[in-house]
Amino acid sequence: MPSEFGLIARFFTRPSPSATLGIGDDAALLKMSAGMELVVSADTLVAGTHFLHQTDPRKLGWKTLAVNVSDFAAMGARPRWAVLAITLPQADEDWLAAFADGFFECAAQYGIELVGGDTTRGPLAMSVTLLGEVPPRQALRRDAARPGDEVWVSGSLGAAALGLAALQGKVKLDANSFALCLHALETPQPRLVLGSRLRKLAHAAIDVSDGLLADLGHILERSNAGAVLHFDALPIHPALSPWRTESWAQACLLAGGDDYELCFTASPRRRTEIADLAAELGIPLTPIGHITATPGLRLLDAHGHLLDVACTGYDHFA
Amino acid sequence: MPSEFGLIARFFTRPSPSATLGIGDDAALLKMSAGMELVVSADTLVAGTHFLHQTDPRKLGWKTLAVNVSDFAAMGARPRWAVLAITLPQADEDWLAAFADGFFECAAQYGIELVGGDTTRGPLAMSVTLLGEVPPRQALRRDAARPGDEVWVSGSLGAAALGLAALQGKVKLDANSFALCLHALETPQPRLVLGSRLRKLAHAAIDVSDGLLADLGHILERSNAGAVLHFDALPIHPALSPWRTESWAQACLLAGGDDYELCFTASPRRRTEIADLAAELGIPLTPIGHITATPGLRLLDAHGHLLDVACTGYDHFA
Repeated sequence: MPSEFGLIARFFTRPSPSATLGIGDDAALLKMSAGMELVVSADTLVAGTHFLHQTDPRKLGWKTLAVNVSDFAAMGARPRWAVLAITLPQADEDWLAAFADGFFECAAQYGIELVGGDTTRGPLAMSVTLLGEVPPRQALRRDAARPGDEVWVSGSLGAAALGLAALQGKVKLDANSFALCLHALETPQPRLVLGSRLRKLAHAAIDVSDGLLADLGHILERSNAGAVLHFDALPIHPALSPWRTESWAQACLLAGGDDYELCFTASPRRRTEIADLAAELGIPLTPIGHITATPGLRLLDAHGHLLDVACTGYDHFA
Repeated sequence: MPSEFGLIARFFTRPSPSATLGIGDDAALLKMSAGMELVVSADTLVAGTHFLHQTDPRKLGWKTLAVNVSDFAAMGARPRWAVLAITLPQADEDWLAAFADGFFECAAQYGIELVGGDTTRGPLAMSVTLLGEVPPRQALRRDAARPGDEVWVSGSLGAAALGLAALQGKVKLDANSFALCLHALETPQPRLVLGSRLRKLAHAAIDVSDGLLADLGHILERSNAGAVLHFDALPIHPALSPWRTESWAQACLLAGGDDYELCFTASPRRRTEIADLAAELGIPLTPIGHITATPGLRLLDAHGHLLDVACTGYDHFA
């Protein structure tokens, strides 16, 4: 069996031209752009908790990095360097080669270099720490929502959760919808360009990884604010739309994880600029409600009646 | 059971005064000191691979961070910020409180702030990414050893491996030795001050985490060099010394992991300065051989005869 060092050399060492010192020493040495703030995020994926053991390793490699890129999108920041800690039950070379291909495909897509990590034996899991930059005081934070702001969401919601439900045999989809939803679940496309363009337009932002209500809830908690959302305004994914009156589908829409869209707040005066940005980038941006000074999250139906919000998002220990 | 967010808030959120934005957003925002290089290292500890499940959580918290600090010692770098990804089978509050206490005790000792992380459900494991700084072009690298350099090692070797052997019932120690060795195994004291002082004295450096021969081997490989070591010069830990002629004890000395001492190379002209530094810091620094242009690692006995070096260090996938 190849050694730990052989595995790293063979599958995870690719050129990192921007690093003073990349993989192969006790630590990596990196040079920040002058005057920028350092941005750091971390996300772990554990087999059985975040993905099924039989997940295609190439797609898993992509997603392992993509979920971290999504955090950078939500900050309006530029990712530059990744550190990958991977724990494997055994050194399966085919699996590793495919995983590395997916990981580096995502890295190339978003301009990221792998500069370090750790390969250990144990139950399958991977943990990425992503490093990058943002101009000082320009990051999009969770605590910056203001009463009167409109709440926006990018793209559409619910496809990833619907894909998972289909995989688990809880719902039957036609082939086309199944392919779309599986793609959303397995190869999320973080909204990096959108996030960076929102730095000058938005107040607060977060990526929708645990479900819209839970993630918007983090903005509200950190901003000491509340929100009113309009259920009929939510951009439900077309594949989920036929079931929109059923409670399980509403859970996919409101509390389904893994969408990796951006939810952000902005002054109503920015509405035209945001619409122009949506057109320029070809990404739907939908106003779904507004921020209130009164705490709490209220969801209204088409008649202005309050809907019950029982499903508040994914929590590993709830 | 408390939520994931409750766990982070309760156990892992402590002030991080140097961070622009600490725990609680999509990413942390940090301000580097002007002109410094960014240093990044990562280490993962997995239950059953790196520690026994019954390990005292407070000591485990210390060690989780300390092994990363040791990488910084080996670079001569200053650690500033840690990111902790922790995976837990269940939210055991007593365990978490003790783990966090040990982690933050180590953080306080070495001037580190926890600025982010991820808490997920799964088999027990923790992965730390440590961030910090070093003056440009001054980091101690593995690839900088030169033929003629003397090879040095700090402290003594073999106590941690002896402690593990005693825990596993492979050897019986007196109470005093057992306590010493267990302390070495469970609460390593990384040589951070030594590493920073060596920036101006040493050429190459590495920390002894996988065993002396394996770790020195990394220096040799990266420096395209070889080394001659003198077995009798090696600073064997006093508790291990009685067994120094036995092969299992030699394996503890040469290939025992977890010592977290520094192995470094320096010009023979630096010998006096290095001896003075040892006296000033109260840390034994021992010359154990020298670097050769000829590749390969040769270990000689007191008569200059070549010893067989079968045990080359710990490798997770060997």
